[in-house]
Amino acid sequence: MNTILIQEILFHLARGHKKVIQEFAEDIHPAMLAEFIETMAPADLAAFLQCLPPLQRGEVFSYLDVPVQVNLAHSMKRDQLAELVTNMSPDERADLVKKLKDETLEALWPALAQAERDDIKRLSGYAEGTAGAVMTTDYITLYPALTAREAIEKIRREAPDRETIYYAYVVGDDREFIGSTSLKDLILARPEIRVGDLMVPNPIFVKLSDDIEQVAMTIGKYDLLAIPVVDEESRIVGIVTVDDIVDVVQEEATEDMQKLGGMQALDEPYLETPFRRMLGKRAGWLATLFVGEMLTATAMGYFEHDIAKAVVLALFVPLIISSGGNAGSQASTLVIRAMALGEVTLTDWWRVFGRELKMGAVLGLLLGAVGFFRVLFWQMASPVYGEHYLLIGMTILTSLIGVVTFGTLAGSLLPFVLRRLGLDPASASAPFVATMVDVTGLVIYFGSATLFLTGTLL
Amino acid sequence: MNTILIQEILFHLARGHKKVIQEFAEDIHPAMLAEFIETMAPADLAAFLQCLPPLQRGEVFSYLDVPVQVNLAHSMKRDQLAELVTNMSPDERADLVKKLKDETLEALWPALAQAERDDIKRLSGYAEGTAGAVMTTDYITLYPALTAREAIEKIRREAPDRETIYYAYVVGDDREFIGSTSLKDLILARPEIRVGDLMVPNPIFVKLSDDIEQVAMTIGKYDLLAIPVVDEESRIVGIVTVDDIVDVVQEEATEDMQKLGGMQALDEPYLETPFRRMLGKRAGWLATLFVGEMLTATAMGYFEHDIAKAVVLALFVPLIISSGGNAGSQASTLVIRAMALGEVTLTDWWRVFGRELKMGAVLGLLLGAVGFFRVLFWQMASPVYGEHYLLIGMTILTSLIGVVTFGTLAGSLLPFVLRRLGLDPASASAPFVATMVDVTGLVIYFGSATLFLTGTLL
Repeated sequence: MNTILIQEILFHLARGHKKVIQEFAEDIHPAMLAEFIETMAPADLAAFLQCLPPLQRGEVFSYLDVPVQVNLAHSMKRDQLAELVTNMSPDERADLVKKLKDETLEALWPALAQAERDDIKRLSGYAEGTAGAVMTTDYITLYPALTAREAIEKIRREAPDRETIYYAYVVGDDREFIGSTSLKDLILARPEIRVGDLMVPNPIFVKLSDDIEQVAMTIGKYDLLAIPVVDEESRIVGIVTVDDIVDVVQEEATEDMQKLGGMQALDEPYLETPFRRMLGKRAGWLATLFVGEMLTATAMGYFEHDIAKAVVLALFVPLIISSGGNAGSQASTLVIRAMALGEVTLTDWWRVFGRELKMGAVLGLLLGAVGFFRVLFWQMASPVYGEHYLLIGMTILTSLIGVVTFGTLAGSLLPFVLRRLGLDPASASAPFVATMVDVTGLVIYFGSATLFLTGTLL
Repeated sequence: MNTILIQEILFHLARGHKKVIQEFAEDIHPAMLAEFIETMAPADLAAFLQCLPPLQRGEVFSYLDVPVQVNLAHSMKRDQLAELVTNMSPDERADLVKKLKDETLEALWPALAQAERDDIKRLSGYAEGTAGAVMTTDYITLYPALTAREAIEKIRREAPDRETIYYAYVVGDDREFIGSTSLKDLILARPEIRVGDLMVPNPIFVKLSDDIEQVAMTIGKYDLLAIPVVDEESRIVGIVTVDDIVDVVQEEATEDMQKLGGMQALDEPYLETPFRRMLGKRAGWLATLFVGEMLTATAMGYFEHDIAKAVVLALFVPLIISSGGNAGSQASTLVIRAMALGEVTLTDWWRVFGRELKMGAVLGLLLGAVGFFRVLFWQMASPVYGEHYLLIGMTILTSLIGVVTFGTLAGSLLPFVLRRLGLDPASASAPFVATMVDVTGLVIYFGSATLFLTGTLL
């Protein structure tokens, strides 16, 4: 939307032309409207929102960036905020409340109805990353004795307040979850048929404590628009809708990628993360890796006399160890992603071990051969490696087979070890695996050198 | 589901108890059913599918793994296959047909109705990764002159054949797309209101050639269940549903991660990728990186005399160059992911440059300080570095600042260069950046050494 439009809106806003603002806002998607008004000064933004009818105000507010939401909330009058919070969807309301200052929260609390307070308390109590933490409590329940016509009538009555009206969940007398049905099935059914006869009696559901990645997989597998969440007594307590899942899937992938890149996950968009926070997320791992990598200096110190005798050995150090690191990076990335997608589980470790052992050996042989011929051709062009060039070539061939095989195995098995220990497999990042492989790589390399070159160069 | 159940099903299948099979299948989600029958032998699987009513058969078939689908299709009689294909959803049908052998396709073609043939041809013609390639053509259109009651009646009539009935798209006389409405709005509206007055007149849509990541972002931003796809003349030609988007988002993230790990994307689940194909995807990049990394041997050769004079220099080579690689890996991962999410675009390169220059300098100073004190403390413990240990410490400090800053800048800017050249930024993988930084790192390191140590050690 262009700046002329903004000028016009600001003009009407300043003169309190509420009607004009409302007409303007009527036909625009709340997400687009939120994007539009986020460019305004905070005071104008607040004034604009106040022009909208309460339900639409709650909707548009939900689409604002969270920092903007929090700022606005802190500057609002208590009753305004209470009305707004009441009109937000339960899951986003709980997210907002968690981020409010204590004094704002204390002021807000008595202004809310008991039902809202209980709902917020319950929803904000669930652990981050579980079904409970992303679910909403705005869903439709039906009893099995209702007819399809009565069910549609009930859905129509409750529709304005519900996040989705396209699924309805059938519960028994104790609210235990017994089946699910869809508006499509209800509309297509004979009006007199009972919901109990129409519903799918083996409904798909997730548990409150289920990991959100698990929820995403289940929703994806069954192509659902929403999935019910049940508590320990099999009572339905909420639903997770697919639009929240799209966001979750993106966020989880972003976190995993950032960890794979050798840092802590950011939690915020790149350009919006303040410098200091970004530094904290990056410096920690980088320093840890650095301290780990110091072991290479110690290992090299151990072979200092060999290097002094045959300086040529030093030349290939970066080539050898980085090959192990690269091979390990491939293997760990593959396994970590396959684990996140549920393609590989802990019990598959033996199959992965077998595959990667073979893969590592073949890749090592390949790189080793390239390395060997590189030494041969260089030597033919100008005799830089002296009379023992064949032995040097053999040292390189053998150590590449060893280093690449070790790197591949370490990279593929480390995620299993981390998961087994209850840690995040994605921490087996490319730089972490590379650092681990570097020290071993040096030992393998100088070990091969001792094997082939003792009596000649060493 | 347990093996006893499978035995029972196979028992009834062998005796042709069609009714029992149908009753068993009735209350099970097609995705669950597909998973269950995939454990059967191909002949049993085919027999099982033949017991189901045609519509359910098409649905269950759609959830089978693609290789299983293709195998089944090739072994089916022509008319059976034609019936099955007719009952599949248009997007999945087009995907299947693309993978069939030519002779199967030639036999199938005349057995299909003209409308199906045209639909398949059109859908399979769109480029991979565009909205056209994932959209389906089963959607509901309405004319603005219809009343809400008539619209609901039309939706009810068409519902059995439609992928989603929860959105309906309003078109003008030339099929140009003029607005969208939802079943929720229609149900809540007065029955006599015209669709033209009820619809959202500024509908959100995507174009046929839009990138699928773009489509995912738009659907995610507006929390839609489906998004209409229009052609160049603004006519609606299909819809993309959110369940397909969840899959697409996961697949895109997987591809990017695998590229970031320094290999080609797999296209198949890890454990299902045949060894040879996997080798091909990994060996290519690994060998390329290896050849690039050979430059380090050449660079080291250039400093061979320095190493011969001061072997102590060789000890720190792995530490220095891996620090640059790690810093680069962080930076490239961050920028690549931010680009994929649309948080950073080409025009932001200058902002990113400024941020990362500062970040690299601070991180380099940090690691440099750690490295400097490491030399100091080691020397105090036992005088391994000789009388010039302070100069060695300064060499390490200076080169770490240089190497980490360079690595950070290279990692963050390389994705911009790749995108500018029309290549995939995700190819700026951690191993690729590390390899690039290694050679430069050596030059910076030995350059600093010359600066500080000439006249003493060198």
